Amino acid sequence: MATAEACPKARVVIQQCLNARLQVQPPSGEKEAEYVEVGRGIVIYLCFLKGATEDLVQKMVRSILAVRLSESEPNGKLVSVLDLPGDVLIVPQATLGGKTKGKAMQYHSNIAKIEGQELYTKFCTVCAETFEINTNTKEANKTVKHGTYGNRQVLSVVTNGPYTHVLDF
Amino acid sequence: MATAEACPKARVVIQQCLNARLQVQPPSGEKEAEYVEVGRGIVIYLCFLKGATEDLVQKMVRSILAVRLSESEPNGKLVSVLDLPGDVLIVPQATLGGKTKGKAMQYHSNIAKIEGQELYTKFCTVCAETFEINTNTKEANKTVKHGTYGNRQVLSVVTNGPYTHVLDF
Repeated sequence: MATAEACPKARVVIQQCLNARLQVQPPSGEKEAEYVEVGRGIVIYLCFLKGATEDLVQKMVRSILAVRLSESEPNGKLVSVLDLPGDVLIVPQATLGGKTKGKAMQYHSNIAKIEGQELYTKFCTVCAETFEINTNTKEANKTVKHGTYGNRQVLSVVTNGPYTHVLDF
Repeated sequence: MATAEACPKARVVIQQCLNARLQVQPPSGEKEAEYVEVGRGIVIYLCFLKGATEDLVQKMVRSILAVRLSESEPNGKLVSVLDLPGDVLIVPQATLGGKTKGKAMQYHSNIAKIEGQELYTKFCTVCAETFEINTNTKEANKTVKHGTYGNRQVLSVVTNGPYTHVLDF
């Protein structure tokens, strides 16, 4: 058994999307809410658990952007989001570390909030850097967008098949 | 450690939704595609793995409908979908059994398709029956809708916070 399964240091849920829209700043006073939007690509729900490190972030990004979880057109062949090429929307989602205890959820495995925020920022940066240097995503002007850590994630997702996967690291 | 973690027999991903719309029949000839819709409640992505049984289905439904994964208004207190009361949308999602092998996904843990279909149908039936006899959901006219097993799940979800949880059984 892989160690990741016994005691993962991070968990992501990945879904295909045709488009998605995420609030990054709630409305405040007279200021309207701010949103980011992506087109066809993947939504990454992201949670860091105890023991996660910056080295793990590098490994996670490499793996997530390379794994073949996107159906290409017209033949439906599975390719990576880099090869699609598609957009990426990163949604911080600390609830992924939850385990049921009776009717409640417990989050004992979750990383401390400040560490989680640092790793989240790093993850977003490394994804964006990868998109910058990858020929496919750069030439097709594909983009990495992300939510605001700690905020409520007001989100709409449209998909032709979510093709949901859970990856532990 | 719970046995479920070492070798789960089923996996679900649960998200809160404000509304969601799922295709249950693709367009065919001159017939338009058919959809089901739900309002505020939860979306359950559902995958059965090897070893799942009808008894497990009963246990899963009891647990999923009772666990406090829905934020009630106006105070945000967490309640079950039965106590919200809210709707349920069930989405078959065999990909949840996937594990990475290099850049590809493997689904060696997944249950055979015909067994998976039977358990899926049972799960949907038991959810609907529970909603029928529960005073909260019945009086508020809340509903259980579900996708077509084996079809492409063309889906839109709008949420004020997905509050995503992964539950293994």
